[in-house]
Amino acid sequence: MTTLGGLLDGPPAIVAAGVDVFSDALRAQGADVHDVEWRPPHFGDPADLAALALDRRRAAANRTAVERLLAAGSVLVDVRPAREVLDIGGRMLLHSGPPLLWENASGPMRGALIGACLFEGWASSVEDAEKILASGEVTLDPCHHHRTVGPMAGVTSPSMWMWCLEDPVSGGKAFCNLNEGLGKVLRMGAFNDEVQERLRWMRDVLGPVLSTAVRSRADDPIDVKGILAQMLQMGDEGHNRNRAGSLMALRELSPSIVAVEAPSSDIAAVLKFAGGNEHFFLNLGMPTAKLALDAARDVPGSTMLTVMSRNGTEFGIQTAGTGDRWFTGPAQTPVGLFLGDYGPEDANPDIGDSAIMETYGVGGFAMAAAPAIVRFVGGTVPDALATTERMYQLTLAENPAMAIPIMGFRGSPTGIDVLKVARTGWLPQINTGMAGRVAGTGQVGAGLVQPPQECFEQALAALAEAARPA
Amino acid sequence: MTTLGGLLDGPPAIVAAGVDVFSDALRAQGADVHDVEWRPPHFGDPADLAALALDRRRAAANRTAVERLLAAGSVLVDVRPAREVLDIGGRMLLHSGPPLLWENASGPMRGALIGACLFEGWASSVEDAEKILASGEVTLDPCHHHRTVGPMAGVTSPSMWMWCLEDPVSGGKAFCNLNEGLGKVLRMGAFNDEVQERLRWMRDVLGPVLSTAVRSRADDPIDVKGILAQMLQMGDEGHNRNRAGSLMALRELSPSIVAVEAPSSDIAAVLKFAGGNEHFFLNLGMPTAKLALDAARDVPGSTMLTVMSRNGTEFGIQTAGTGDRWFTGPAQTPVGLFLGDYGPEDANPDIGDSAIMETYGVGGFAMAAAPAIVRFVGGTVPDALATTERMYQLTLAENPAMAIPIMGFRGSPTGIDVLKVARTGWLPQINTGMAGRVAGTGQVGAGLVQPPQECFEQALAALAEAARPA
Repeated sequence: MTTLGGLLDGPPAIVAAGVDVFSDALRAQGADVHDVEWRPPHFGDPADLAALALDRRRAAANRTAVERLLAAGSVLVDVRPAREVLDIGGRMLLHSGPPLLWENASGPMRGALIGACLFEGWASSVEDAEKILASGEVTLDPCHHHRTVGPMAGVTSPSMWMWCLEDPVSGGKAFCNLNEGLGKVLRMGAFNDEVQERLRWMRDVLGPVLSTAVRSRADDPIDVKGILAQMLQMGDEGHNRNRAGSLMALRELSPSIVAVEAPSSDIAAVLKFAGGNEHFFLNLGMPTAKLALDAARDVPGSTMLTVMSRNGTEFGIQTAGTGDRWFTGPAQTPVGLFLGDYGPEDANPDIGDSAIMETYGVGGFAMAAAPAIVRFVGGTVPDALATTERMYQLTLAENPAMAIPIMGFRGSPTGIDVLKVARTGWLPQINTGMAGRVAGTGQVGAGLVQPPQECFEQALAALAEAARPA
Repeated sequence: MTTLGGLLDGPPAIVAAGVDVFSDALRAQGADVHDVEWRPPHFGDPADLAALALDRRRAAANRTAVERLLAAGSVLVDVRPAREVLDIGGRMLLHSGPPLLWENASGPMRGALIGACLFEGWASSVEDAEKILASGEVTLDPCHHHRTVGPMAGVTSPSMWMWCLEDPVSGGKAFCNLNEGLGKVLRMGAFNDEVQERLRWMRDVLGPVLSTAVRSRADDPIDVKGILAQMLQMGDEGHNRNRAGSLMALRELSPSIVAVEAPSSDIAAVLKFAGGNEHFFLNLGMPTAKLALDAARDVPGSTMLTVMSRNGTEFGIQTAGTGDRWFTGPAQTPVGLFLGDYGPEDANPDIGDSAIMETYGVGGFAMAAAPAIVRFVGGTVPDALATTERMYQLTLAENPAMAIPIMGFRGSPTGIDVLKVARTGWLPQINTGMAGRVAGTGQVGAGLVQPPQECFEQALAALAEAARPA
């Protein structure tokens, strides 16, 4: 034995990282070469990347965060008016995405805020509504600041009924309003009489009936996470395909709805409304994902995402290691398929809290489970499969509860790691509805979109800052 | 130009069929070789195969048969007692598969026939029932002889309520009784008090409620073919996975069921029964396939199958070119997964008219659309994909109405050609429930099975006989 510890006593074993030409040349000389797949990090300050790579807390913190995410359950415990369960006293409206000022709000967000002021009776005309919104008489606050999520504009006002879900593991709660269906709907920025009439019916008939039905099952609450898991076996991915999920939710609720003491015409109308809306389940799936990600909040050292969300102007993310701090960048415009005569120029930039589904590892991350979705959001079936494959490179775990049959029942990729995003340069894939750019339009299509890289750059810097010894 | 028509003026173009060694040798000499994939026919008398190959009617006849199959629709028009819509006067019981005598009936078929005699009040004990069945006092006739199909034992008695379906294209009708659910059920050969009580409830409550509900939609009958098409986008294959289909059927029927004037406890019980049975749709899917295959009957010269069916003892097929004639062989025992403590020795040979789904090109033929089914019938996800791929080799067409998303929305393989089966030697792949071998047991599992080759050998000979000039 020499001081080299025998290193030169035998033939060398070589580990090669980077371009193939080096390892190929060594292999041609008969050397034993082990290739390591490695590419330079795609973005991030080298010192920040190093600080995070060397942060001893990181591995355990990420394990803690993702284990909490995986363990969380979701049961439907109640349906209540927002004013009773959320801290939204006075004239407050919740909206999707990171914090937003009226003057920066996009068309569909303005449309939805106007519609909510009309619905609440705070204004009697569009002009009045615009005035009180511009003056600051109505407080705007993100849904996410209230354990709430809302699809698209996500506008939630005190008189709206909320699905109330609970995580039996952590005891956490999450909320979401009721889905209005497709087309001209408030969440897509429409606010006309048709929208107002539907919102009033939802307030006066749908909400009370669902509330009584859900409360009657207090001893046997619906396992919403279980439905989401089944959906992936039935061609849904839980963001833009909710067909099987909506049918299963309806199947679970129907016997209780039928037993509600209400005019039979109301019961029939509720069954028809819910049965006619293939996204009925979305507003149950989103708080299910929210429960799991809220369970993973506030784990110092973790680089895992807890929120991806968009307000139509900005895209925002939060991480388990940085608490409630938002990292934002300009929202991109989705690319996809359009309804009727609408085209790309009609589409508003990315909007909605529904990217919580991808944050949880379904939606765009589980498109392999839902190949039929390409007829709705665009792309091809091989793209859908490849997208799910690619997302495993960004994530910390496979969710065994969310198995994807076509991939041999592999769990969906979950727990997006900011560091992995920086290293690969691949951004999370989101599929999404598209609202019309002009207030009042409604839905114009559906497509695929990614967050701006800026969000991740900022998050990386903040995480690195927190990782450095004081 | 010589008398050879210029054949030797240029370099030869060579078509090679069979083993590669010939074409490889020619290609090595720079020749232009076109390989034709060809293997010797797997079975069939060479003279018979030649007669069919040369039958000038065949191509057009098969086109006619498969076009009728593809064009057929299916709407749900009524629910009526069997005695009102089927020609089963006196003491007659229908059963699955080809014609059968009591003395040859398997355990589950005997169990179901005994149970039906008890249900109809023709016997007051198992011994009485066996006596009247053995004596011939009860006439046995195949469901298929009455435009009817029945899953598993398929036993259909006069007091059972029937789904009544109609093909708007041909005007044809088809029938199927109501699905009892899983476990100890008549169709699996169980006949105890639990079975009898359920059959009476189905006769007294379920049937009348469904009848009123379906009749109330006379102006807007349910498009059952449309539901079947949607199922393939939702992880069902329509034979052993009917989850999405059952939910969609329930969604369609619920508002009409709720409107039926009946005690609200009955309405709730009907919704719960239907909602709790993931094979509720099977008995709507089967007559939908039957309508399409009956539309393709009696096309002289066609080698396309119109029936595959099993009575628990024999497997029988019919072809479009040979009318109502059965070609039979011994039923095989499926290989698959077992419930509870049951094992292969508990399984009865293949039974049921439900192979009409594969005859129509779904079920085992569309397993690629339903990868999660391997958890129920056995095999792996790649097997499921490969099975669908293989079935295209046996079939005349792709059914554009039955698109399989994972295969890029390719239509399911349909129109099984006896000649292609003989040429490839591949037998149609069926997935199926397994009944217990002993009368009274009920379901023991589910698995995969194929018809015996004898059926196809006999059909080939008969088709060839008909193809020869008189």
